[in-house]
Amino acid sequence: MESPLASLTFTADRPRHRQLHDALREAIREGRLTRGARVPSSRRLADDLGLARNTVARVYDDLISEGYLVGRQGSGTYVADSSPDPPRSTFEPAPPARPSQWSLRAGGVAPMAVPGDGPLPYDFRPGTPDWDAFPRRIWWRLVGRRLRDGSALRRYGDPAGYQPLREAISRHLSATRGVICRGDQVVIVNGTQQAIDILARVLVDPGDRVVVEDPGYVEARQLFNAYGAILWPAAVDGLGLRTDTLPVGATRLAYVTPAHQYPTGAALALERRAELLSWAETHNAYIVEDDYDAEFRHGAGARESLQGLEGGRRVLYLGTFSTVLFPPLRVGFVVLPSSLVLPFTRAKWLADRGTGLLEQQALADFLDEGHFIRHVRRSRRRALARRITLEIALARALGGEAEIFPDAGGSHILVRFPGRDAVAIARAARARGVGVYPAAPSYVAREAPQDLVLLGFGALAESTIDTGIAHLATAVRTIPRGLPTPRLSA
Amino acid sequence: MESPLASLTFTADRPRHRQLHDALREAIREGRLTRGARVPSSRRLADDLGLARNTVARVYDDLISEGYLVGRQGSGTYVADSSPDPPRSTFEPAPPARPSQWSLRAGGVAPMAVPGDGPLPYDFRPGTPDWDAFPRRIWWRLVGRRLRDGSALRRYGDPAGYQPLREAISRHLSATRGVICRGDQVVIVNGTQQAIDILARVLVDPGDRVVVEDPGYVEARQLFNAYGAILWPAAVDGLGLRTDTLPVGATRLAYVTPAHQYPTGAALALERRAELLSWAETHNAYIVEDDYDAEFRHGAGARESLQGLEGGRRVLYLGTFSTVLFPPLRVGFVVLPSSLVLPFTRAKWLADRGTGLLEQQALADFLDEGHFIRHVRRSRRRALARRITLEIALARALGGEAEIFPDAGGSHILVRFPGRDAVAIARAARARGVGVYPAAPSYVAREAPQDLVLLGFGALAESTIDTGIAHLATAVRTIPRGLPTPRLSA
Repeated sequence: MESPLASLTFTADRPRHRQLHDALREAIREGRLTRGARVPSSRRLADDLGLARNTVARVYDDLISEGYLVGRQGSGTYVADSSPDPPRSTFEPAPPARPSQWSLRAGGVAPMAVPGDGPLPYDFRPGTPDWDAFPRRIWWRLVGRRLRDGSALRRYGDPAGYQPLREAISRHLSATRGVICRGDQVVIVNGTQQAIDILARVLVDPGDRVVVEDPGYVEARQLFNAYGAILWPAAVDGLGLRTDTLPVGATRLAYVTPAHQYPTGAALALERRAELLSWAETHNAYIVEDDYDAEFRHGAGARESLQGLEGGRRVLYLGTFSTVLFPPLRVGFVVLPSSLVLPFTRAKWLADRGTGLLEQQALADFLDEGHFIRHVRRSRRRALARRITLEIALARALGGEAEIFPDAGGSHILVRFPGRDAVAIARAARARGVGVYPAAPSYVAREAPQDLVLLGFGALAESTIDTGIAHLATAVRTIPRGLPTPRLSA
Repeated sequence: MESPLASLTFTADRPRHRQLHDALREAIREGRLTRGARVPSSRRLADDLGLARNTVARVYDDLISEGYLVGRQGSGTYVADSSPDPPRSTFEPAPPARPSQWSLRAGGVAPMAVPGDGPLPYDFRPGTPDWDAFPRRIWWRLVGRRLRDGSALRRYGDPAGYQPLREAISRHLSATRGVICRGDQVVIVNGTQQAIDILARVLVDPGDRVVVEDPGYVEARQLFNAYGAILWPAAVDGLGLRTDTLPVGATRLAYVTPAHQYPTGAALALERRAELLSWAETHNAYIVEDDYDAEFRHGAGARESLQGLEGGRRVLYLGTFSTVLFPPLRVGFVVLPSSLVLPFTRAKWLADRGTGLLEQQALADFLDEGHFIRHVRRSRRRALARRITLEIALARALGGEAEIFPDAGGSHILVRFPGRDAVAIARAARARGVGVYPAAPSYVAREAPQDLVLLGFGALAESTIDTGIAHLATAVRTIPRGLPTPRLSA
């Protein structure tokens, strides 16, 4: 049994018990630890790995409660006969082991938690839109109209996207976020994920330095890693990205979320914006501005995009319709400097020939006929009401045992449960039908706080929020407080 | 002006006038030859490049008629003030200049012709489905039903695909093509293009050898190139892939179209299939079987897939719904060996999180309720009738001036116009509203016949075919016969 763990070495960036936990879980999931096989005693494994026995025992306990291991009285611990499904219990993507390409032989795509479909009655999953508010019947009518017409559907469209939609987006962005662009600079993609994938392909060579926020968006990091980038994690505080932690050497691009930092929610202060743009100029670096929840910011915040401030020569602006409409509508866009439009379009063509044309056409109509604006306004009002409900419910149910991070609005909040382990909270909550999401995986190089949790509120009715938080409070109180005093920074 | 052409060197694999034409066109498209600038006289350029003056003059004439250059009487030749749109005049992708990654600095994605939307009244474009036969109203009703239900649309689905669709595809493939797989081995993607992109990512490391058919499918080649593969072009004859031209050294995978070779149409003979599988076993190579027009084969041909013959341990089977339904419905699938399902699914997740869920659900219903089978049968009958009409029309209008390649059916044919230049024919045809597509770009290493043309017939009514061929015959006869006598092989 030793062989799957023989190569396990601990890195300094995450707690050892977490690293051991993840390594064992992956080994079981991938069959390297075979079902039904006996695992070493916690004492033995602790000796082998140079860990405290309690540490290993705790990891075994976690894996038993998650269903990967089973304890047999007097006999030892074994790999369960039937592994639980690939992670549906916690949203917990593991960062890639090393920068690499994602071919099998190079190490493959990092193991990740693919969010499952197991329904939870009180699921505070970030990024889930307000599906009930979506005008389905209107959408369906628009789709039907385009199907009936059909003339524009007979062949593959322009891989850069349906021109009227590109123009409509350009107008919309100009009006709402000060983005400066022509329709021709807008390329339609299958959501933000594909936008990052394609721009990484076009812009990143192995060995290039890419700045990411720490904490930040995991999938973006994984993509840049997969294309061979060397990540430079820049710190984040209450004013957003810490520009004094940007690198001094050659850098290819910086991936940032300036309007509403993910996950902390901070809005990038004006002087930091100027510093970031100046840094990019000095280093001839691109900036990728991911405005992932553009429609949901409540505070005064920065209405003006970074792209508008800079002029669009080196800032790429990413946006998406998936989170305001419904997730399976995979339509997003990239606003590119003119010189990048053609390479990006070619890469898009090679990737999948183009985003679904029928959806693009219906979406263009949805925008043009004013349905989008109406839907966004309604969604924003509902989201604000839910956020208030959520904050009040947390304060009532948990008082000082839950600290809510101040932020610029959006569709999720970041909550600290001082002294308590976020993964344990998530597990206990799930057992009560509540979904909350540890924030630690967002961290790269800095020591991840183990007591931070993300709660999305975009999709839940207010009564659901109240009840869900009540159950959450019960779950939280089953977890003993014992982590070291949290540090002041995020 | 010399600088954009100073580095132009001619390779032996394509005619020099084509290389010069493409180089000039790219230089203009990318702004390296600026608009309005004067280009050297044909005599001057011929001297500089060591070409015959007529060769250069002919290239200039082509570029003038395509709109990239303008001649000014007594003054010379100039780059046009407004370039025509990226290639909409001929479907003519250029192969990549060298194997490379597709970042900008590595050379970027190869220039390619993105098929435009300019409508032609008689467009024999290959791969265009029979849109008029598609039951749009039924499709729309299914979409509406799923939207109304909506419960399964609230969050992102399994990135591997909607389980009922995966199962339905598995059953369908088993019944119609002898493919051996469980639903879990089927992963849903955004069409064949994305299937190849993702499998190239997962399987191909820079320097890996990849076998491709020559002639073969261009975009597949470009993708493998972009991921750093070294291509091994294997020959093709009337029995399909020439297994005696497979490499003897280490090879990662072979990309093949055994049921209906693209573009020649040959069905891979049984003894060749056995040889191919034996070769793959010996070299521990994967085989990617692209069954791109599975529903349209008319002849007795091989109903059994290569995957079914082999058992699915090293053959990956690709299929698509785009060509039988309508192109903007970008849904395809890959049947994978079990060990590749997880890596492929992860790569799909990182690429775009998953194919549109609403389309997958509607498609599952479309299959389950029998609409797909009915539609395919109707489409197949119509396609057969159209093919017969097309062949008769060609024989009547052109007699021996048009030689049709025998093949196993499908939705396109390959036609030789002995002694005539295919590009010139395509241009003259376009001027008469007829779209035909030179086959030369499908060739890799072998000398591409310049007199071969692809004609698709999937989307045209029979009367349209008759009229279109009449116009084509007129166009053909304006082109003087003058190419060397074609060799006997494809």
